[in-house]
Amino acid sequence: MGLKGRHLIDPNDFTIEEIQHIIDLGLKIYQNPEKYSEICKGKILGTLFYEPSTRTRLSFESAMLKMGGTVLGFSDANTSSVKKGESIADTIRCMDDYVDILVMRHPREGAPLLASQFSTVPLINGGDGGHQHPTQTLTDLITIQEYKQEIKNLKVAFCGDLLFGRTVHSLLKTLSRFPNISFVLVSPKELQIPYHLKQELIEKYQVEITETSSLEEYLPHIDILYMTRIQKERFFNEEDYVKLKDSYILSRNKLASSKEDLLIMHPLPRVNEISYDVDDDPRAKYFEQAKLGVYVRMALMASLLGVNE
Amino acid sequence: MGLKGRHLIDPNDFTIEEIQHIIDLGLKIYQNPEKYSEICKGKILGTLFYEPSTRTRLSFESAMLKMGGTVLGFSDANTSSVKKGESIADTIRCMDDYVDILVMRHPREGAPLLASQFSTVPLINGGDGGHQHPTQTLTDLITIQEYKQEIKNLKVAFCGDLLFGRTVHSLLKTLSRFPNISFVLVSPKELQIPYHLKQELIEKYQVEITETSSLEEYLPHIDILYMTRIQKERFFNEEDYVKLKDSYILSRNKLASSKEDLLIMHPLPRVNEISYDVDDDPRAKYFEQAKLGVYVRMALMASLLGVNE
Amino acid sequence: MGLKGRHLIDPNDFTIEEIQHIIDLGLKIYQNPEKYSEICKGKILGTLFYEPSTRTRLSFESAMLKMGGTVLGFSDANTSSVKKGESIADTIRCMDDYVDILVMRHPREGAPLLASQFSTVPLINGGDGGHQHPTQTLTDLITIQEYKQEIKNLKVAFCGDLLFGRTVHSLLKTLSRFPNISFVLVSPKELQIPYHLKQELIEKYQVEITETSSLEEYLPHIDILYMTRIQKERFFNEEDYVKLKDSYILSRNKLASSKEDLLIMHPLPRVNEISYDVDDDPRAKYFEQAKLGVYVRMALMASLLGVNE
Repeated sequence: MGLKGRHLIDPNDFTIEEIQHIIDLGLKIYQNPEKYSEICKGKILGTLFYEPSTRTRLSFESAMLKMGGTVLGFSDANTSSVKKGESIADTIRCMDDYVDILVMRHPREGAPLLASQFSTVPLINGGDGGHQHPTQTLTDLITIQEYKQEIKNLKVAFCGDLLFGRTVHSLLKTLSRFPNISFVLVSPKELQIPYHLKQELIEKYQVEITETSSLEEYLPHIDILYMTRIQKERFFNEEDYVKLKDSYILSRNKLASSKEDLLIMHPLPRVNEISYDVDDDPRAKYFEQAKLGVYVRMALMASLLGVNE
Repeated sequence: MGLKGRHLIDPNDFTIEEIQHIIDLGLKIYQNPEKYSEICKGKILGTLFYEPSTRTRLSFESAMLKMGGTVLGFSDANTSSVKKGESIADTIRCMDDYVDILVMRHPREGAPLLASQFSTVPLINGGDGGHQHPTQTLTDLITIQEYKQEIKNLKVAFCGDLLFGRTVHSLLKTLSRFPNISFVLVSPKELQIPYHLKQELIEKYQVEITETSSLEEYLPHIDILYMTRIQKERFFNEEDYVKLKDSYILSRNKLASSKEDLLIMHPLPRVNEISYDVDDDPRAKYFEQAKLGVYVRMALMASLLGVNE
Repeated sequence: MGLKGRHLIDPNDFTIEEIQHIIDLGLKIYQNPEKYSEICKGKILGTLFYEPSTRTRLSFESAMLKMGGTVLGFSDANTSSVKKGESIADTIRCMDDYVDILVMRHPREGAPLLASQFSTVPLINGGDGGHQHPTQTLTDLITIQEYKQEIKNLKVAFCGDLLFGRTVHSLLKTLSRFPNISFVLVSPKELQIPYHLKQELIEKYQVEITETSSLEEYLPHIDILYMTRIQKERFFNEEDYVKLKDSYILSRNKLASSKEDLLIMHPLPRVNEISYDVDDDPRAKYFEQAKLGVYVRMALMASLLGVNE
């Protein structure tokens, strides 16, 4: 497949065929994890978390351990050489002696791209600022594939903070490359997707986009509902936050009108944007999504390491 | 034994037979660790430490590694998703995809119990506030078994802070369930065991309890001396602390009158409640106790995972 | 070789023959890592980092993982029992039940030596204050051996902070024990090596030492140039720091006059004491040095564990 030795910085680094290959492999591993439990024996994953992200870090660590590999790294830049003023380039040139593959999380946009230019081992972007988070996108895609059989002919609604939500932007762009996907974008006016992104989606990919501030109006018509957190830290004042945060809460009641086979997703962690009474609804798949995230990361690392053939 | 898939939140979750089974298995592993060095191959332990506890965490990690398994997790809530406002229930529902067994340490009483209700994998309470610390109790029991051959017909003295000491309360309750155990409780008046606990021990288990403020008076008559730290943070003022902290220090001199086969225990870390000159006394077994703690945790995890049969 | 079960606190703990044995084994592993990828199966390394040092810690962790062993420990004393007032002796007496070999980093000089007196497993000093850092010295020596074939008949220049630089002092003393080594010490007057060390080198080892404040003057004549960082925290005032820090920067231009086979080393991390344009010069080997550091640590741990024969 030609993925061996590659980096993953932006989901667009990979063709649709390459993404599809990783998703298919992820589902194969998910069906039969025993078969893959030793494929990374002797391989070491390096986790460079310049800002904490427990869920992403542990998902990667679990993925590597489940393939028989091992892990080293740091989970917080405060305990790293960064504090001594070392450049990212130098850190990478040492780290890649210690490990076989790297995942980097960094508060600064572009840091993983820079790092990848110095790395002799595959480097995966584990999230850089408000920019990219490609393994979350892969996680979202494998979930769609698992529950919708294929990634095409789908009306996908995104609800919540669409202005700042890195996860949403990344998924919007990648989904646009799949056949016949249309979007319903549900958000308060203040948190609509950035204009330039909307233009890009329409002009480059010719996707159909509907913007609305009402979640309920479109619920009956959509195949997938992707909920996101409205982060307090995105607001300029407390008043705006309080006013908006509850507007887009998904509850069991609201779900009454939606399709039987609606797929409800969320990148987690959630705070209160999905009521707990939704958790038992068979359409709620956000915990399965987190689980599938481990398997798609297994498939990704196996592919970049070239150990899966 | 029926332990597979179970949680351990409170030592009373297990019958005396189940506890005995774990202790016996722990001593078997201790005698022949090689035989068990691969039984957890492919298994992953998740360590959820919402407050730091290096000794407990490393004891668990060592136990899992010595059985051929692996470990992931966090050692401090400051680097976890908790900070983003995620509920324990949600954290657990994701974590249990990553791992095969969990240990949770939490500053809030009841948090591990709550967590266990959402966990699909066995969850072990690694200490919750001033409440329970069941693997410390198992550690204490395996030590008694190793050095006293069986857990019965023993006069056990507890010395130090008996009011706040979680370790002591847990062990008192569990020991009461074994045959013919009596207690000597040595503490300043201000730090005696809580009244409700004393009532419970006497009424529910009919154990004989002697309360005293003099360590020396009872030293010649006891089989086991369980020392505990008097924690500075338990006192309302510095003066009380200074006055009391040295009252119950065990020194080589004081030991002169005690039995030849006295067993001296301490949950560690100690500060100064046992003088260093006691360390070389053959009756001092607190470091052996810490060591046996690894083996009883191996036995516990193997039993909950169902890999020991 | 008699290294099994030994501690390494000071490079002088080992004879030249023992050091040579470790270096030779390190290079053998470097040539053929596959052959050694399982020799530490079942062995656990304990990392006791009482102050953070990401690079040293990860180099050790990588070394152990590459030999098929596992790792546990802490990377920061703030999350350890130390805070509860436990003595180093007690910590060690528990830790050595958990692991097969220990590495300790500590801000206080002498702490690893003290710890080794209580440890029943081999303990390696991973750096204590401004005192010793023996595995950095081994890293430096294996690099010299790799690029100069043997550690003898060499004129070695040290440049930068020679007053406070632990790395430099340690290497100076150890190199002095090899045949026909001479030193050129390049530093501002304020940062020359301590007088007592200079006396020791001259009187005990009869090495030839040239002190100078000009890097360029001696560049044409040396075989090895060992650059070091001038640490801001060593200065009493900002003005002195700014005045001195750039005086001893190595640039591509300055290198023009030096030997074709000059070996340029640096313990890393660097800040700006070597310009980035030097990195591509084939004489610059500091990243290779970091890499060799993993292999010499593999050789060291294998030797102390007695698993390499």
